[in-house]
Amino acid sequence: MEKKNKLLVTGSVAYDTIETPMDSEEFILGGSASYAALAASFFCPVMIEGVVGSDFKESDISRLRERGIDTEGLRVDPQGKTMFWRGKYHDNFNSRETLDIQLNAYADYVPNLVEASKEARFVLLGNISPFVQKTVLESVRDPDFVILDTMDLWINTTNAELKEIINRVDLVIMNDSEAKLLAEDSNLIRAADKIRNMGAKTLVVKLGEYGSMLFHEDGFFTTPAYPVREVRDPTGAGDSFAGTLAGCICASGNADFTSLKKAMVTSSATASITVESFSCRKLEEAGMEEIERRAKYILNSCKL
Amino acid sequence: MEKKNKLLVTGSVAYDTIETPMDSEEFILGGSASYAALAASFFCPVMIEGVVGSDFKESDISRLRERGIDTEGLRVDPQGKTMFWRGKYHDNFNSRETLDIQLNAYADYVPNLVEASKEARFVLLGNISPFVQKTVLESVRDPDFVILDTMDLWINTTNAELKEIINRVDLVIMNDSEAKLLAEDSNLIRAADKIRNMGAKTLVVKLGEYGSMLFHEDGFFTTPAYPVREVRDPTGAGDSFAGTLAGCICASGNADFTSLKKAMVTSSATASITVESFSCRKLEEAGMEEIERRAKYILNSCKL
Repeated sequence: MEKKNKLLVTGSVAYDTIETPMDSEEFILGGSASYAALAASFFCPVMIEGVVGSDFKESDISRLRERGIDTEGLRVDPQGKTMFWRGKYHDNFNSRETLDIQLNAYADYVPNLVEASKEARFVLLGNISPFVQKTVLESVRDPDFVILDTMDLWINTTNAELKEIINRVDLVIMNDSEAKLLAEDSNLIRAADKIRNMGAKTLVVKLGEYGSMLFHEDGFFTTPAYPVREVRDPTGAGDSFAGTLAGCICASGNADFTSLKKAMVTSSATASITVESFSCRKLEEAGMEEIERRAKYILNSCKL
Repeated sequence: MEKKNKLLVTGSVAYDTIETPMDSEEFILGGSASYAALAASFFCPVMIEGVVGSDFKESDISRLRERGIDTEGLRVDPQGKTMFWRGKYHDNFNSRETLDIQLNAYADYVPNLVEASKEARFVLLGNISPFVQKTVLESVRDPDFVILDTMDLWINTTNAELKEIINRVDLVIMNDSEAKLLAEDSNLIRAADKIRNMGAKTLVVKLGEYGSMLFHEDGFFTTPAYPVREVRDPTGAGDSFAGTLAGCICASGNADFTSLKKAMVTSSATASITVESFSCRKLEEAGMEEIERRAKYILNSCKL
């Protein structure tokens, strides 16, 4: 079978109930794979991999399909419910609290990839347990480029398993505190060296409102964030950053230093749109034109 | 009398005893004016304004003079002692604790400028109480450009006085948490708008290891930090950033958007050298060649 010039996105597909200092919404589409797949869909053909329960709304399937996302690999567990997260932001988004987490359909989930997914050239292992990530990684026959996103939970609870996967992927994404935690080094630049020595040649560090950094064998690159005046819900910003990065790599078929730098700027733009609404709504409405406008603004904002 | 194309730097001149997680040093030259004047001295003629006690070492006067700094305005209080600060860095530089602070000669200090200082075209009101800053500001006859640096202490204790000065200067420098505190807004971009509405047309926000941002009537600019692998003592990084910014403006005689952008990159470079040694030692040794090398690196690190 021929390899498909598509991006396979795995991670969680969930319903979120989110309370912010100004606002709240209930049972909205969330999860790392949802955010990443929706963001990536602006750049390349996307296949999503995951599991939902019988309560998953038809309208949310349509929402993914409207963006051209192949949902064949999104399994429905007829006995299960969709994963659920209830979170609350405090102190005007400076801290986040998990009020409830129910893994539901993801509790004992073992990915079983559809045939088309196994032929993906590009894979984003979105934020989910390293066990799920590993099964997906081993199911794809011969990927050209694999990206791994993760979070502090997995660094703390499944450290050895996470490191094993880091050793097998091409690019790792995490935020600065997670990078320091994983490397056990409070200096970010040294931490980046250590993580790259764990196997993945390339590391992208997300810095939230301060932008992101790229540590690559050909050099160091950093891009600022787009200046956002009204954050409505920061959930999924990192996932849509990762999705855009993977989408851009898949679209260009290239992950050299220059391509990655351009992809980082675009990812920074996308993430800034994500935080301006609940779920991925604003990104889906605004689309490519706004992404490109912000990417241009970002590039211009660090030029002399 | 003719205006002097020189930079007047005021602020504190102090002795510091500093403990870091790896190291400690006692009674080393510190204070906002010392760091700022030493940094600025690489770019333009500098006059320092401040007060020390009879314990101030002749070798520290020489140290300033060796960098060409005019110390005529550095008064000696024969009855007093030099201001003293004892600080300790915890958790590998992520937090700082003041163990002792003795204002000494600064306790009742009222600046009384020497004639040459009154003719300065450029003034840096380095971090010190707004009362001292105001007296200096009112003593300079007709400055072209005045920069104000401050810290959370003054925002919390002398808020009205600080705001009065902000309304009378051209550029304000502070870090991101201070900007949010002053503006009473947890969104940095909105906070910047509010501070610029307090009077100073231009705001520079220091972001430590993430660089800095410039909010100017002609646009928004952001520059990353130089990637430092070995922080030895972060004391004075912000002061040497401010000193370099003021020094570059004085040197070019220009504070338009483009000149400020260039100055920010150079300031970022200087600050990264300051943190690599106790006091200003490494900066004094490394000098312009290293500053220029790092500035080039910084500019290159955000270019596609």
